[in-house]
Amino acid sequence: MASPNNRYDTHISAQYNAELEDVRQRVLAMGGMVEHQVTRAMQALLEIDSDLAREVIENDHRVNGMEVHIDEECSRILARRQPAASDLRLIVAVIKTITDLERIGDEAERIARMSLDLAELDAPRGPHFEIETLGRQVQTMLHDVLDAFARMDPEAALAAAQHDIRIDREYESIMRQCITFMIEDPRSISRVFDIVWSLRSLERIGDHARNIAEYVIYFVHGKDVRHISLEQVAEELGAEPLSKD
Amino acid sequence: MASPNNRYDTHISAQYNAELEDVRQRVLAMGGMVEHQVTRAMQALLEIDSDLAREVIENDHRVNGMEVHIDEECSRILARRQPAASDLRLIVAVIKTITDLERIGDEAERIARMSLDLAELDAPRGPHFEIETLGRQVQTMLHDVLDAFARMDPEAALAAAQHDIRIDREYESIMRQCITFMIEDPRSISRVFDIVWSLRSLERIGDHARNIAEYVIYFVHGKDVRHISLEQVAEELGAEPLSKD
Repeated sequence: MASPNNRYDTHISAQYNAELEDVRQRVLAMGGMVEHQVTRAMQALLEIDSDLAREVIENDHRVNGMEVHIDEECSRILARRQPAASDLRLIVAVIKTITDLERIGDEAERIARMSLDLAELDAPRGPHFEIETLGRQVQTMLHDVLDAFARMDPEAALAAAQHDIRIDREYESIMRQCITFMIEDPRSISRVFDIVWSLRSLERIGDHARNIAEYVIYFVHGKDVRHISLEQVAEELGAEPLSKD
Repeated sequence: MASPNNRYDTHISAQYNAELEDVRQRVLAMGGMVEHQVTRAMQALLEIDSDLAREVIENDHRVNGMEVHIDEECSRILARRQPAASDLRLIVAVIKTITDLERIGDEAERIARMSLDLAELDAPRGPHFEIETLGRQVQTMLHDVLDAFARMDPEAALAAAQHDIRIDREYESIMRQCITFMIEDPRSISRVFDIVWSLRSLERIGDHARNIAEYVIYFVHGKDVRHISLEQVAEELGAEPLSKD
């Protein structure tokens, strides 16, 4: 039977586990909120819905508040619990993840602002179809990355990170179309520019999502994979080689 | 006289201090390297110097390597030394600072790539003068922020952060000029686009530098000032009110 001392330890440890679980849950809640912001920003952009755009812009401070709150909680745990090994890696991964989530929130806000700009221009639709496709890809990637974070699944994280390569390629191609569009119809320049900034924001969201995927891999494998190619990561994890299409 | 036990404590503490100082020095070295990368990327852009641009691009992996190294050192210190209070704040500030430094390095690389693009276009100079001015402002701000970090001086950090407001205003104005330039001379669109991306990178560098300034304030005052206005920060620090010009 456990000694009172042991019971005390278990109690401390259960409390500590609850704190770690609470941090994890808060990151997931922040992730869900950020995902929602991106979805609604894209909707505001595509439907030129200024009310929705303003809502997205107003909500950004809630994302920021979540970041500050989780950050404080992590600092408290570091100071009180002195985590080691995988607990420490979880806290470090969380501190980094919420920075990227906060910046995804900023990009969602930027997209919403572009929607307001477009509404003012009162111009016909530009290369909207393409941004819709890219937007959907980025949203899927973000969703998959957050899912990988929730399950702390490095293979799922890697698969989601690999999606970023396709997004970058798509982004380059749409950007070239935008430039052609502007050259052919210089009156469209201001309008296409709002699309260009939105595309850029989507590409950045992909980059941030990829960062988060890399923190998941770091958390599980204790390996920093940020500055090596995804091919190498796949090899080191013994995962499927990167699909080339 | 100190007991052996006390001496041992002092020894441990001296070693620990040396580790914290080492981390700080490494961040400064990384900051110096990143500053150098930005300066040379701007030079490569303004002088369309492809050799220099390629050097900047090749050097980026050294910046990345520094980030990974410092990150590992921070994790080691967190695990072994279990820092509290201001030591813990230093480590958290460092973990965040190097992320921003690494991203400034990425932006320098992007600017260098735009220089290569411009060299290929073999086109006359576009709105070069304006980007030179903005570039100099951003470089000054980055230098001041790193200086504030070196001295852990929150007032200097705040003054440098306030510079970002002027940079954003300048950036908006140059961006409008670029759009006008393209509308007036659609053949310039591809070329001006490279300038536009470089301007965007400079503006991002200003944002990252501002983040670092905020970490310095957080470190010294234990206050998270990321999502409140600089006016409020100035007020809370009892500093000079924000200059409006």
